[in-house]
Amino acid sequence: MLNFDFHNPTHIAFGQGRIADLAKLVPATAKVLILVGGASAEKTGTLAEVRAALGDRQHATFNGIEPNPSFETSMRAVVQIREGGFDFLLAVGGGSVIDAVKFIAAAVNFEGSDPWAILEKGGRNITGALPFGTVLTLPATGSEMNNGGVITHRAKGAKLAFGSKHTYPVFSVLDPTKTYTLPTQQLANGVVDAFVHTVEQYLTYPVNAPVQDRFAEGILQTLIEIGPRLLAAPEPVYDDRANLMWAATMALNGLIGAGVPQDWATHMIGHELTALHGIDHARTLAIVLPALLNERRVPKRDKLLQYGERVWGITTGTHDERITAAIERTRDFFESMGIRTRLSGYGLGADAVDTVVAQLEAHGMVKLGEQREITPAVSRRILEAAL
Amino acid sequence: MLNFDFHNPTHIAFGQGRIADLAKLVPATAKVLILVGGASAEKTGTLAEVRAALGDRQHATFNGIEPNPSFETSMRAVVQIREGGFDFLLAVGGGSVIDAVKFIAAAVNFEGSDPWAILEKGGRNITGALPFGTVLTLPATGSEMNNGGVITHRAKGAKLAFGSKHTYPVFSVLDPTKTYTLPTQQLANGVVDAFVHTVEQYLTYPVNAPVQDRFAEGILQTLIEIGPRLLAAPEPVYDDRANLMWAATMALNGLIGAGVPQDWATHMIGHELTALHGIDHARTLAIVLPALLNERRVPKRDKLLQYGERVWGITTGTHDERITAAIERTRDFFESMGIRTRLSGYGLGADAVDTVVAQLEAHGMVKLGEQREITPAVSRRILEAAL
Repeated sequence: MLNFDFHNPTHIAFGQGRIADLAKLVPATAKVLILVGGASAEKTGTLAEVRAALGDRQHATFNGIEPNPSFETSMRAVVQIREGGFDFLLAVGGGSVIDAVKFIAAAVNFEGSDPWAILEKGGRNITGALPFGTVLTLPATGSEMNNGGVITHRAKGAKLAFGSKHTYPVFSVLDPTKTYTLPTQQLANGVVDAFVHTVEQYLTYPVNAPVQDRFAEGILQTLIEIGPRLLAAPEPVYDDRANLMWAATMALNGLIGAGVPQDWATHMIGHELTALHGIDHARTLAIVLPALLNERRVPKRDKLLQYGERVWGITTGTHDERITAAIERTRDFFESMGIRTRLSGYGLGADAVDTVVAQLEAHGMVKLGEQREITPAVSRRILEAAL
Repeated sequence: MLNFDFHNPTHIAFGQGRIADLAKLVPATAKVLILVGGASAEKTGTLAEVRAALGDRQHATFNGIEPNPSFETSMRAVVQIREGGFDFLLAVGGGSVIDAVKFIAAAVNFEGSDPWAILEKGGRNITGALPFGTVLTLPATGSEMNNGGVITHRAKGAKLAFGSKHTYPVFSVLDPTKTYTLPTQQLANGVVDAFVHTVEQYLTYPVNAPVQDRFAEGILQTLIEIGPRLLAAPEPVYDDRANLMWAATMALNGLIGAGVPQDWATHMIGHELTALHGIDHARTLAIVLPALLNERRVPKRDKLLQYGERVWGITTGTHDERITAAIERTRDFFESMGIRTRLSGYGLGADAVDTVVAQLEAHGMVKLGEQREITPAVSRRILEAAL
């Protein structure tokens, strides 16, 4: 096992009806800015529940944080917070809203001239942030229990990640019934996003960390079990929603990645596909991952065999055959969730590869993966295999 | 899944050489009281490492916290802290030292006339505590990453548990090499203690919580894998020590118990055995658990079958046969760790049963277990089956 630090101070309030707990979770004297995406939080009644729980506290709402949240929109929220003197932020939504609120919380008091520098430094220059909580409505990214975010600069066409010890939510309310109104496509995205988060911290090389391995395998097995049920159910089933929510949170709260190597190349390549072509984050991961695992089958050999055996029950055949089968089962699982796993499925051809590789180079993404061996040339091979 | 809160703010600094990090982890201006058990922390050089890392900070040492730490000893430390004006505590040792430091940290500023009231109220009357960190030298109890402790009142012959949101360690340093000097018996105790902690939160009844189930199973599988290796190794093996340490921490930091029923009857009965007869904590658990699982085989049926299949690979036979086999494999595992699983192995006979049952009644332990069905009469049957 590798040396590690694990420190996750976010308070999780999990279960049906927990939005009412905002009455205790938000400081009594806070002046609260609620931040949301589109109209759905209002339409579904979630915002009314939130406002009721806030009681007498002063509050206002900032509406309009988009999927793949932008620097530009975030900075509009920063202006509203400064002008309105808000001292507590409440993200109501999915990973995009929560990521944006983390950035906004850090940008409000940022001392540099341009808060884009936070992204350029990956958050290492964050020295403080407004306190914030979240009410999760879309299980997928794990942002509700970690300190990281990804922000897109529309004008620059750049999508960059950041994190800081100052950007953990103080609390996150996880009420599985808040997912009942999600379209099927977003549920499928959530399953695949959580799956790939887990794989990024698991399918690397062995360091003799059996607890972490089995936790990761347990999350993957759970997602494989509940994914198809979530899509097929004519009405939402509480436990399946609850288990998706908790699996997605556990997939990216630092726990399964503690003490083990981490990859993240699939995410870095995927971010460029989203920034350039607007493909849903989870779908970019489903495109890149199978091709990446195949390209990296030799350095990832031992863990691919373990993954095949423990997660998919693949115990026969040569090692090569078993690895091929494990990768194909992964691809089939994504496809069974209604998510296409090739660039051609999104109308992209060979010419798209050049621009993605050029952007990776422009953003310094030239030594990706747990071995730092995924150079632009390797990324190119991965993308070509994903055509 | 049941509704739950999960909030664990302890910072874990894990790995070889991490004691040096005390230089950053302990506040620079702190006046530190280091608390230890016997002479081993001094003899092994761990205390010298700790003192070196504390650098210029004022510090003193309180020596003599015993296994099954006592109220009486703890109160002597409270006096030293008040008189010396210490404002940060550092536990160096295993679960006993850490449990004691939690109680001491809460007792220093306790407003009532007698801090024993903290135990009588299970910690619900704690309103604040001195900040404290830990340096773990004996992986077993999980106390390094939770807010609970157990304190024995020697004069009263009572062993009671407490917990509070104020009694989480600020940090815990987990350096697996600090276990290298442990006697075999303590390693075996650690494996069994962590195993039973996991079982108490897993072998109850199903609530459709597959992530929690698989995390628990992953910890059990890991302990089964490394336990015999730990005992057989002629020299300490870093990874096995590291994995025991992390498994024991994860077994009782609140995570696998979040959203699921919990039993803890084995612990409550075991505590009386320790208080009356001085049997090591883990050994009392090894005595009680197999008998309890057999007594409760009907209400625990579904989870016992799942446990048998996933943890021990038992897939054939009638349900009753499979459950019997799962319980026997559990008993055999404890015995293979050199830990006897019957009262007779510790020189106790039928007359001991009466006094244990009487103490359970005296301490209000009359409706134990996840179903609150383990009355004194049921505890008696369990103990008689453990003779």
